[in-house]
Amino acid sequence: MSINSFGHLFRVTTWGESHGPALGATVDGCPPGVPIDEATIQHWLDRRKPGQNKYTTQRREPDAVRILSGVFEGQTTGTPVQLMIENTDQRSKDYSDIMDKFRPGHADITYFQKYGIRDYRGGGRSSARETAARVAAGGLAREAIKALAPNIEISGYMVQMGPNRIERDRFDRAQIEQNPFWVPDAQAAEEWATYLDDLRKSGNSVGAVIEVVARGVPAGIGAPVYGKLDTDLAAAMMSINAVKGVEIGEGMAAAELTGEANADEILMRQDGPQYSSNHAGGILGGISTGQDIVVRFAVKPTSSILTTRRTITKTGEETEIITKGRHDPCVGIRAVPVGEAMMACVILDHLLLHRGQIGENRGHIG
Amino acid sequence: MSINSFGHLFRVTTWGESHGPALGATVDGCPPGVPIDEATIQHWLDRRKPGQNKYTTQRREPDAVRILSGVFEGQTTGTPVQLMIENTDQRSKDYSDIMDKFRPGHADITYFQKYGIRDYRGGGRSSARETAARVAAGGLAREAIKALAPNIEISGYMVQMGPNRIERDRFDRAQIEQNPFWVPDAQAAEEWATYLDDLRKSGNSVGAVIEVVARGVPAGIGAPVYGKLDTDLAAAMMSINAVKGVEIGEGMAAAELTGEANADEILMRQDGPQYSSNHAGGILGGISTGQDIVVRFAVKPTSSILTTRRTITKTGEETEIITKGRHDPCVGIRAVPVGEAMMACVILDHLLLHRGQIGENRGHIG
Amino acid sequence: MSINSFGHLFRVTTWGESHGPALGATVDGCPPGVPIDEATIQHWLDRRKPGQNKYTTQRREPDAVRILSGVFEGQTTGTPVQLMIENTDQRSKDYSDIMDKFRPGHADITYFQKYGIRDYRGGGRSSARETAARVAAGGLAREAIKALAPNIEISGYMVQMGPNRIERDRFDRAQIEQNPFWVPDAQAAEEWATYLDDLRKSGNSVGAVIEVVARGVPAGIGAPVYGKLDTDLAAAMMSINAVKGVEIGEGMAAAELTGEANADEILMRQDGPQYSSNHAGGILGGISTGQDIVVRFAVKPTSSILTTRRTITKTGEETEIITKGRHDPCVGIRAVPVGEAMMACVILDHLLLHRGQIGENRGHIG
Amino acid sequence: MSINSFGHLFRVTTWGESHGPALGATVDGCPPGVPIDEATIQHWLDRRKPGQNKYTTQRREPDAVRILSGVFEGQTTGTPVQLMIENTDQRSKDYSDIMDKFRPGHADITYFQKYGIRDYRGGGRSSARETAARVAAGGLAREAIKALAPNIEISGYMVQMGPNRIERDRFDRAQIEQNPFWVPDAQAAEEWATYLDDLRKSGNSVGAVIEVVARGVPAGIGAPVYGKLDTDLAAAMMSINAVKGVEIGEGMAAAELTGEANADEILMRQDGPQYSSNHAGGILGGISTGQDIVVRFAVKPTSSILTTRRTITKTGEETEIITKGRHDPCVGIRAVPVGEAMMACVILDHLLLHRGQIGENRGHIG
Repeated sequence: MSINSFGHLFRVTTWGESHGPALGATVDGCPPGVPIDEATIQHWLDRRKPGQNKYTTQRREPDAVRILSGVFEGQTTGTPVQLMIENTDQRSKDYSDIMDKFRPGHADITYFQKYGIRDYRGGGRSSARETAARVAAGGLAREAIKALAPNIEISGYMVQMGPNRIERDRFDRAQIEQNPFWVPDAQAAEEWATYLDDLRKSGNSVGAVIEVVARGVPAGIGAPVYGKLDTDLAAAMMSINAVKGVEIGEGMAAAELTGEANADEILMRQDGPQYSSNHAGGILGGISTGQDIVVRFAVKPTSSILTTRRTITKTGEETEIITKGRHDPCVGIRAVPVGEAMMACVILDHLLLHRGQIGENRGHIG
Repeated sequence: MSINSFGHLFRVTTWGESHGPALGATVDGCPPGVPIDEATIQHWLDRRKPGQNKYTTQRREPDAVRILSGVFEGQTTGTPVQLMIENTDQRSKDYSDIMDKFRPGHADITYFQKYGIRDYRGGGRSSARETAARVAAGGLAREAIKALAPNIEISGYMVQMGPNRIERDRFDRAQIEQNPFWVPDAQAAEEWATYLDDLRKSGNSVGAVIEVVARGVPAGIGAPVYGKLDTDLAAAMMSINAVKGVEIGEGMAAAELTGEANADEILMRQDGPQYSSNHAGGILGGISTGQDIVVRFAVKPTSSILTTRRTITKTGEETEIITKGRHDPCVGIRAVPVGEAMMACVILDHLLLHRGQIGENRGHIG
Repeated sequence: MSINSFGHLFRVTTWGESHGPALGATVDGCPPGVPIDEATIQHWLDRRKPGQNKYTTQRREPDAVRILSGVFEGQTTGTPVQLMIENTDQRSKDYSDIMDKFRPGHADITYFQKYGIRDYRGGGRSSARETAARVAAGGLAREAIKALAPNIEISGYMVQMGPNRIERDRFDRAQIEQNPFWVPDAQAAEEWATYLDDLRKSGNSVGAVIEVVARGVPAGIGAPVYGKLDTDLAAAMMSINAVKGVEIGEGMAAAELTGEANADEILMRQDGPQYSSNHAGGILGGISTGQDIVVRFAVKPTSSILTTRRTITKTGEETEIITKGRHDPCVGIRAVPVGEAMMACVILDHLLLHRGQIGENRGHIG
Repeated sequence: MSINSFGHLFRVTTWGESHGPALGATVDGCPPGVPIDEATIQHWLDRRKPGQNKYTTQRREPDAVRILSGVFEGQTTGTPVQLMIENTDQRSKDYSDIMDKFRPGHADITYFQKYGIRDYRGGGRSSARETAARVAAGGLAREAIKALAPNIEISGYMVQMGPNRIERDRFDRAQIEQNPFWVPDAQAAEEWATYLDDLRKSGNSVGAVIEVVARGVPAGIGAPVYGKLDTDLAAAMMSINAVKGVEIGEGMAAAELTGEANADEILMRQDGPQYSSNHAGGILGGISTGQDIVVRFAVKPTSSILTTRRTITKTGEETEIITKGRHDPCVGIRAVPVGEAMMACVILDHLLLHRGQIGENRGHIG
């Protein structure tokens, strides 16, 4: 079977294939009374939109979202919100090369092994195009968060491309929107441009690490033991195409630390508990501490490259393949708005879940 | 609210606190006809049991599991299996120091902020003792897997402790059961023993990385898009206490690779498709390829250390704390059987989910 | 929050309002390889379509379904199937009378009390128009059932309209498609036509009882204790607009029987167990017996009538209302195909759930 | 597979068999801070306890509940509450007669056909003994409701036994606790005693109708479209052993009414909207109106009777059976506290779900 929904109370089901008539997100559980219109969601979709610079696929889709339900007179009504994006650039293309061959690194072979049938046009359901629906749902989630907890801010950016990492000393949030990589480091942006251009020209590709931060999440949000905030974030990020690793706070590097070095000491300030550091990434026992929630995920290099690779056909013959077409040399770039969208959906979901308890007895310190 | 269940069809709900009368796992959806008895599950619990050597907490619990339901005449009946472990070593202890202070790195403060009440005895529900219930459920899952797909083997081991990593060249599965760290490298085992002993004596602690591998999982198991095998594994591992990062295959290092280097080429062999490498960790598009499924996760250093740390009280005063007691210098050690248990539960769940489709039209290659 | 999904593995989420741009069903978990096209689903929608005779609302919608995803080259792919129906007859109407008044018997007042906002155009989400999406999903479910268990037949019909009941002695399945009431009794059809015509002319309305039968469901399908076949059928039917009661087999009348009278004795025939009677309605302990599965549900009279009724406004003033417009004198008529659709969805869901167990050890008798 | 959980946020999983070591309920999602102890839950269990008079089974179990988790210092902590009841009266009995025969009207045959294995001791999982766990969970739900909405009252009673119905004119709530049938009609209680005594002596049994009412539920609680209050109530009641029909408000009789007769007109009173009648049973569009929520369900006659009935064996031979043992002539009697418990669980669940929305914008009238 397939499982195309996520979320406990803010429940998003995405649907649609790369080359079908449309794709979208059916969002159930959005609170009523959230001001929303198509333009607001479109803003977030435009950030993800392909074809905006030479580093992303040249597929040109307007990716125009339509709200088909759940909104009346500019507000959500509490009923399901259907967000549809029509596929307009379904190039009539010759798929004869690809329809019987499995592209290495793609889900062609596993979908076939699972379902016995596969939509070979651009990867079908396994195409990263599915993430457009996530970004649309994330745009709605952001507006609902604004209504519930206006201080929350969510932002994503790239911290590594191939072997190149940002310098944390040069971290500058203002830079994020100033370069095609959403990298918060002006010098890195410049260097990476040259690096990626070379890769692109050679028909090769490279991986990346994205960091997404949520600021202003109140302490006490999360749901132990299997609906922990970090558990849900790990699932959300790992479900994005091509993601191979997820980290919270120190992440994998936590293994190298001693208990002394890793301890986030607790202090008391005017407005509540503060911490001496944030190795935990804003989450203890699956529940928010009130600090920044920090998630990172690694995106593997785009599998579609111009180098000849060995593969097999549906009937089991060995052959070779070059994956031509409109592809990104670093698919991680477009994963930034997707990661932000997933963060928004998870945070909203947990804000709603938390309201399900008896609010008055939340622990107050000081 | 809290969410204490995981799994789609093989649904495990754990319950119980560190110092309550008992803890356990309510397992719904176990297939009928699986041979099982208490001794079989006890075998796995004994691997996790504390107090077995100087590197794990000296709490001495027999951790004896009782099957209270769902099994009749030595076989599962298809009804819920209740696995209960009584807490026998609930030392009557003076909690006066800890009951009003929050231990840094523990969930004391966030549980209080979420629920307004906390069971301060040994961490209550947030204690790693909860994982005993997971190991019991995992033991049942292993037997069900054996009945469905006898070729599947699941094994976990430590690959990093603090800054020390195993040498992949020296990898020797036979070593895993020969040392207290479940490390598949005899030389590492020796070196780590000295390293950890020093840490233990100084009252400090350290993190670790665990790798869990499932061999023999047939191709075509998994459920796109939000119930991907890797998504569910990421959630399963991240839900374990103290885990801060999860990787599949290349994991975070995938970011450094080029598309050329990362490609797992597909070849054809007598018994089906084979791959030139396994950067993907046995999963493409959320579905198994038939290769080894490889997951790693990082466990942070034990937060309970003998160094004085700053913290605050429930009423908001700044103070200091030393967390004495029966603790592990490297809690990652006992996470090995827990990671295996989570892998077993996820694999079984997806084997069952897969049977939900029309089996006959699974794609056959060659 | 709202909950717009049903089903365990065959998961249907409906969306859309009476007067929005479109409505539909997002269907996740449909098995792959099911032959389907828009015409097949349209067939079932046409049965429910309004405006076909003088007894159903004169709203004229083509109710044309479009498949937007999940189907490739005439077969389901195992990915979500999006079924969309555009609303074409959204008469630009003057809602000034209704927008501030609550129609008695409708959900106007409760939606407002729950959400603080309501789409007053034709009832919005609470309109029976939502059931078109169910019928579309049911059409898909029927085809999937055909692929899994070709002997299963599902059919619904009316057995009571107001005080008039069919004569079981005159029961004739061939009559069902021969009259506007789907009543399996030619004489009743004639009498009811006169009865309903009178009611319609007087601006009044009346209730009805629908019976839906599934034949050929194999024994052993169902899922105790809270996912019983009858539990899921009760929920499915009660979720239909205006339904106030659900019965399985003897239903409410079971209360009047003695144990002797109610016993379905078990006999042995060539092809397996047979029963002397079917008081149980084909379900024991939530699991199918192999007999006909028999469900009945009562639909209340259409609340929109031409008699003046007392009500209040949004600001709490008492007032009166006559609900003019395009309405059915017996909304139960159009509930017949809806009941069939729900039966199809539930049966398919349980066929899929059942496959999740280890098939080989199903009990065989004789 | 089996599905042994119900509820959206207040999630109850029952486990255990009639003759296993214990049974119970694992309750996840109970709000924190609810005062609770074993005695409070025991009170409700004692109402359901068998062996209290000659009309219920003579099995004598203390049915003592133990709270194994989720409660600390007399309050719920927000973590799972494990409620366990040990089976003490597992009479060592000779099952040789029953182990190979299927009892008509019981789930013996269908469990075997589904699972290929059955626990023949007293019906195993399909025994009505499972409902003890529901009553325990219901006791907890009642306390949580008290904390959230202290005006809510839930009470159940019998309104029909066999052909005998109560007189609504003689309805007297004070009588409910005064007779063994929980019937709110002193004269009926007397007459039914004679009636049932005769039936019992002849080894026969009879069905019943139970009505459960929730008073004081605020308007606006419920969750369209598939989590309607009435949908969830229908499922909850139908999931109880031996239930064959469920009605809300007018129930099946709604079919006989005209729109005029069925209309609940809306009036305005000091404290909000009032209705001229309650045909709807307190629910419109799946959402509460603020009126009494009225549910009825029919329980079939006890299947275990002293009359010889025809049946078959596991190997398919025809044979006969008399079901001796400790049985209730009217199992409906003990269904009263079970129906109340299910009502409590559903109401609490929806109170919690409702809190998940943005509370401030709930519609206020007047």
